[in-house]
Amino acid sequence: MNQATTSAAGAQNVTRTLARYLVNAKPADLPPAVRDHAVRTFLNWLGCAVGSCHHEAVDIAIRTLAPFGGPAQASILGRTERMDIFSAALVNGISSHVFDFDDTHLKTVIHPAGPVASAIFALAEYRPMSGAEFVHALALGVEAECRIGNAVYPDHYDRGWHITGSAGVFGAAAAVGKLLGLDKEKMVWALGIAASQPVGLREQFGTMTKSFHPGRAAQNGMTAAFLASEGYTSSLQGIEAKRGWANVTSTKQDYREITEGLGERHESLLNSYKPFACGIVIHPAIDGCIQLRNEHGLTADKIASIHLKVHPLVLELTGKRTPQVGLEGKFSVFHSAAVAIIDGRAGENQYSDAAVLDPATIRLRDSVDATVDTGMAADAVFITVTLTDGSTLTKFVEHAIGSKDRPMTNDDLAVKFTDLVEPVLGAARAAELLKACWDMQGAPDLAQITALSRPAA
Amino acid sequence: MNQATTSAAGAQNVTRTLARYLVNAKPADLPPAVRDHAVRTFLNWLGCAVGSCHHEAVDIAIRTLAPFGGPAQASILGRTERMDIFSAALVNGISSHVFDFDDTHLKTVIHPAGPVASAIFALAEYRPMSGAEFVHALALGVEAECRIGNAVYPDHYDRGWHITGSAGVFGAAAAVGKLLGLDKEKMVWALGIAASQPVGLREQFGTMTKSFHPGRAAQNGMTAAFLASEGYTSSLQGIEAKRGWANVTSTKQDYREITEGLGERHESLLNSYKPFACGIVIHPAIDGCIQLRNEHGLTADKIASIHLKVHPLVLELTGKRTPQVGLEGKFSVFHSAAVAIIDGRAGENQYSDAAVLDPATIRLRDSVDATVDTGMAADAVFITVTLTDGSTLTKFVEHAIGSKDRPMTNDDLAVKFTDLVEPVLGAARAAELLKACWDMQGAPDLAQITALSRPAA
Repeated sequence: MNQATTSAAGAQNVTRTLARYLVNAKPADLPPAVRDHAVRTFLNWLGCAVGSCHHEAVDIAIRTLAPFGGPAQASILGRTERMDIFSAALVNGISSHVFDFDDTHLKTVIHPAGPVASAIFALAEYRPMSGAEFVHALALGVEAECRIGNAVYPDHYDRGWHITGSAGVFGAAAAVGKLLGLDKEKMVWALGIAASQPVGLREQFGTMTKSFHPGRAAQNGMTAAFLASEGYTSSLQGIEAKRGWANVTSTKQDYREITEGLGERHESLLNSYKPFACGIVIHPAIDGCIQLRNEHGLTADKIASIHLKVHPLVLELTGKRTPQVGLEGKFSVFHSAAVAIIDGRAGENQYSDAAVLDPATIRLRDSVDATVDTGMAADAVFITVTLTDGSTLTKFVEHAIGSKDRPMTNDDLAVKFTDLVEPVLGAARAAELLKACWDMQGAPDLAQITALSRPAA
Repeated sequence: MNQATTSAAGAQNVTRTLARYLVNAKPADLPPAVRDHAVRTFLNWLGCAVGSCHHEAVDIAIRTLAPFGGPAQASILGRTERMDIFSAALVNGISSHVFDFDDTHLKTVIHPAGPVASAIFALAEYRPMSGAEFVHALALGVEAECRIGNAVYPDHYDRGWHITGSAGVFGAAAAVGKLLGLDKEKMVWALGIAASQPVGLREQFGTMTKSFHPGRAAQNGMTAAFLASEGYTSSLQGIEAKRGWANVTSTKQDYREITEGLGERHESLLNSYKPFACGIVIHPAIDGCIQLRNEHGLTADKIASIHLKVHPLVLELTGKRTPQVGLEGKFSVFHSAAVAIIDGRAGENQYSDAAVLDPATIRLRDSVDATVDTGMAADAVFITVTLTDGSTLTKFVEHAIGSKDRPMTNDDLAVKFTDLVEPVLGAARAAELLKACWDMQGAPDLAQITALSRPAA
């Protein structure tokens, strides 16, 4: 019943071509830079998940699922609970995204680690594997979901799919399938079963369900791979068929993004990390405000008004004028500019419920204005600060920190990791865990990382 | 972040209006005919699930999930295993659909019971409830998913969504949410979390993943309701928002189908039951062939050729000329006409692997021809049989048995149930179970039905 189609560029054997690559790939085939970048991806994911492990959404998910879950097979990051691997994948996926601080594949705005790392980190505790195998599977999973995302972006995202969940499910299926040692036929089935389970609507932004998306995508992809491993059949063209995933969820399909240059062009290298705990489109404004603050010793009382010229997406996604709770602050470029001036940073503390209700912050926030400049790049901003004495300061940020052209260094990532992990696990454990992550490619298994990512007994 | 929209008819407060109805509904508000029809829906679902409980897809799902599942909380129909309620919902949902013999809401081709009954039957064993409460929740869940399906059908289905999974998730969330006693706010969240988890592509037809769809929809809706019950938030406009479910998955939205006449117009009354174990579009042809056979004592050796004038969907969905395995036979109007003549029926036995390879069946099948008549109704067919002596017999079926205008009677349903259940549970147990189902509205709980739906200890 699997109908072939040639309705879009390169629509022949897309699922099979991707599956063949995944099955044949060997760790040594990947350039060291790709493997090192996967370690950065893992480190960033782990820091985010540990840092937000006590968020209310995580508490609710654990207490909801616990009465129905299986044996204690896998750890919940930063916490003492252990759950079956499917539940752990969901919960850790929620943690990793709930601060909106995780990684971003800039071409698709997919947050790649959530669906993939959450699935295979749970699996690694149940079926031990070497650090090198883990890193390889992570890189392959990220590669699969980002390529599939490329094939349908932007139409798929514009339509309203939260692409992290809707494409992420393939990343989880690919990575888990690789670690289960699926053959080509079963890998095709795994991708096919995943195709029937896209997760996530953009409408959920600003609610707990946004974070549910990468967690559920991890769980769905894992389910797909396990079912396929036991012989559960699916379409052989789950991605590209006339009524397959890409046609059902998008008006654009460019299958060459999936099938061309496999093993040569590495989308996973384009994964980037956020220096600030909010939507990436606000980062240029925060970066510029912090630079102005530090260069001129700016304080709120010296400022009459702030004007931002921004990329169109900034006001579409983060135009909230009067956030009432911390989570809404992450969708307010106005609040974000204000805390950048006042605190010189935009970490989780700047997006607490108290922070958005702070009178001094509100005063400064109300003086921030933003207009769209259709010529402005997504990672750029132009800021004009008018001081109370009538003079003005300006700052043009061409590439925000964390963007492709100005990536966070390993040292930057270590600082971010430490900021997130220390409050949960303490300074000593955070430092040990950081070191174990940097060394993970040589580790015989992930036992040390798993143990250190929980509180000391 | 929940953007309102007025892009389609009646787009105001759709999710909230539906949630309010679900929360306020009381069993006594439903007309007796609606409640009785819900019992028929349950009986048909139970028979299908028990009858196919040893299908390979069910075996695979159980052995895949068992190592990760929770406590033995709920029964697997027809089998000795018990699993946690989420796993049981998935597995029983697979069983109920794997024979393609389950119920059909003819306006949307949703198979309503799979997602809803699979979820609440598992729940009923974990949290005992009266038969009346169960039947009420089943009717409400079916009502919710069919109304939501109406709002987007046919565009949503034409695009390629297997609407049983993609709309069914709402039915499961509504029914489980009702039984958990959710208040209005939490019911809105349950529907919202469900909105992020549509399941199923039509591309999967002919593979095991088709049956995965209602099972996973049951599980997803149940997950949504349980998360909401503990306070997990979602959009308040999951169905109707600009980037909500209906806009993301369809180009058509008619929200009046969801919100108008709640409690007065009952979509659940339009649920129908299949007399034959295959796609509903073939039923007129089977019905007509059986009638010709019985009226004229037809046998294969007397027939030179059979010609069918059919509705266009018949060849689009079931035009398989040379099925090689039993499942493919269900998508072959040619095979179906042949077995109807030879055996006078089209139950599961007529769609075994052996049946599609039987030489006598193949000989007759190869003499069957079909042409599309765009004026033919979906539940009609015109059959011409040319005999070996050159004479012809004709039969016009205006409304196939099982259609809205010629529904199966309770006696018909009992025969179908018995045919399905006896081979699994034996004649005595099948009869007892049948009686318990007919009496379920007066039962204090579902314990008797649950016990009888498993093999004797």
